[in-house]
Amino acid sequence: MLKIVKIGGNIVDNSTRLSTFLRDFAALEGPKILVHGGGKIATEMSAAMGIETEMIAGRRVTDSETLRVVTMVYNGVNKQIVSELQNLKCDAIGLCGADGKLMISQKRPPVHVGERLVDYGFVGDPVGVNVELINKLIDIGLTLVVAPITMDENGGLLNTNADTVASSLAVALAVCRDSGVKQLLKNKGRDGVELVYCFENQGVMMDMNDPSSVIPTIDRAKFEELKTQGIVDRGMIPKVENALRAAEKGVSSVVICAAENLSQPRYGGTEIYSSPRNRYS
Amino acid sequence: MLKIVKIGGNIVDNSTRLSTFLRDFAALEGPKILVHGGGKIATEMSAAMGIETEMIAGRRVTDSETLRVVTMVYNGVNKQIVSELQNLKCDAIGLCGADGKLMISQKRPPVHVGERLVDYGFVGDPVGVNVELINKLIDIGLTLVVAPITMDENGGLLNTNADTVASSLAVALAVCRDSGVKQLLKNKGRDGVELVYCFENQGVMMDMNDPSSVIPTIDRAKFEELKTQGIVDRGMIPKVENALRAAEKGVSSVVICAAENLSQPRYGGTEIYSSPRNRYS
Repeated sequence: MLKIVKIGGNIVDNSTRLSTFLRDFAALEGPKILVHGGGKIATEMSAAMGIETEMIAGRRVTDSETLRVVTMVYNGVNKQIVSELQNLKCDAIGLCGADGKLMISQKRPPVHVGERLVDYGFVGDPVGVNVELINKLIDIGLTLVVAPITMDENGGLLNTNADTVASSLAVALAVCRDSGVKQLLKNKGRDGVELVYCFENQGVMMDMNDPSSVIPTIDRAKFEELKTQGIVDRGMIPKVENALRAAEKGVSSVVICAAENLSQPRYGGTEIYSSPRNRYS
Repeated sequence: MLKIVKIGGNIVDNSTRLSTFLRDFAALEGPKILVHGGGKIATEMSAAMGIETEMIAGRRVTDSETLRVVTMVYNGVNKQIVSELQNLKCDAIGLCGADGKLMISQKRPPVHVGERLVDYGFVGDPVGVNVELINKLIDIGLTLVVAPITMDENGGLLNTNADTVASSLAVALAVCRDSGVKQLLKNKGRDGVELVYCFENQGVMMDMNDPSSVIPTIDRAKFEELKTQGIVDRGMIPKVENALRAAEKGVSSVVICAAENLSQPRYGGTEIYSSPRNRYS
């Protein structure tokens, strides 16, 4: 089982919590990929440089100056994570979407957010993953650490949501697993892909103030219900959307959980299912 | 022949000159590695953040804040170079010394600069290169783009002179070429290593104001003479030292030349020889 773990910006920003998380990540057995955010540090760095950060519906508006800053911040954070993993005897290599065309994306056209037409600027939505390169690097014994910067077809860098980077990697690698090389990959312990979203909360919760209110499982019908009730809202909507999309497109196991629970069995968070009949067993 | 090209910070800082250089670099045939600086941008970024830059004998004093900034800047610049190369159909992958333990270094102890004892801080001198990983990545068909950040044995990131990174890579890869796998590598066109230092000048010059005064060849004896005469001084001393060290340790060809001459035969710069008898023929 190939594990793809995404760690959120609020953990990345806290060196103690990040170190605890990386220790648990390094201890995970088998092939694995870490996708990280870094938005909070990017906001701080932008502020230090006098660049105002504009967020609309939880997503960063990225002009050329902001793109320059996030490219530096995310890839700098990437190397700090890589070196910390190396010290934990995890042979990490840090990449972004441009490296070896790891992840190609398309610049997002202006979209409606409510009534408003929003141009997010240099923001990309993934359209392709170089699964061949990823498999080769994993075969060398490397653990990929992926920064959420991707590249368009013309070599333009684009800021990309890290949750989306993680789900796109998971889906592409799950598809490649089913495409005739299944037996070969099975022998290498890469049959099936597991996607784990780690962040500061315990999972998707009924009540944000009650850690024991974690919703154990969510499928598409339940998600629609939770949205209607206003229980899943704002930044959690795209996160659950990304998770559901992965589950529906062949990723074997998808979980949203607390960063500090990565070493727990089944991670103690919310499991995301494509539909009741495909539940993880 | 494996080509290792180093491009200086003054070219990296100028997008037009950088693009011209990258076009020529992408057109070079055979396996190749690009090592880049970025010091000028790091100084600008530090200033924007209110961090003062201290240079002693042409080298940056690197406290923890400065290390954080140069890690971000160099690895951000790295991805801009990678994406521009990808657009030129050169399949580039950007790495620093921490990635896959590409280059391990040792934190420099305080050193005497003239009368003064200087602690350069988080600055590293290379002690090891992962030639196995580099050869595997080249075998995949990738062009390595290397940022001048290395890692100590305990996973600490260290700022490292890019000229030194380039010569350390060249020497390590030249040694590996001679270690029994020579025939194998020869078949893959990697027999021998060529090191090219590209920067804003035409080469090592008798007179900085006269572009036609390029010294065509330098060996150790000539270097000592030029130093005594004050013709090679300041920042040029470590550059020529690095070049000489590479030539003396088995790198087949070492040249210091102008970035805009990379497409010229023999690059039109200064050729560095280990000794008269080992001259490149």
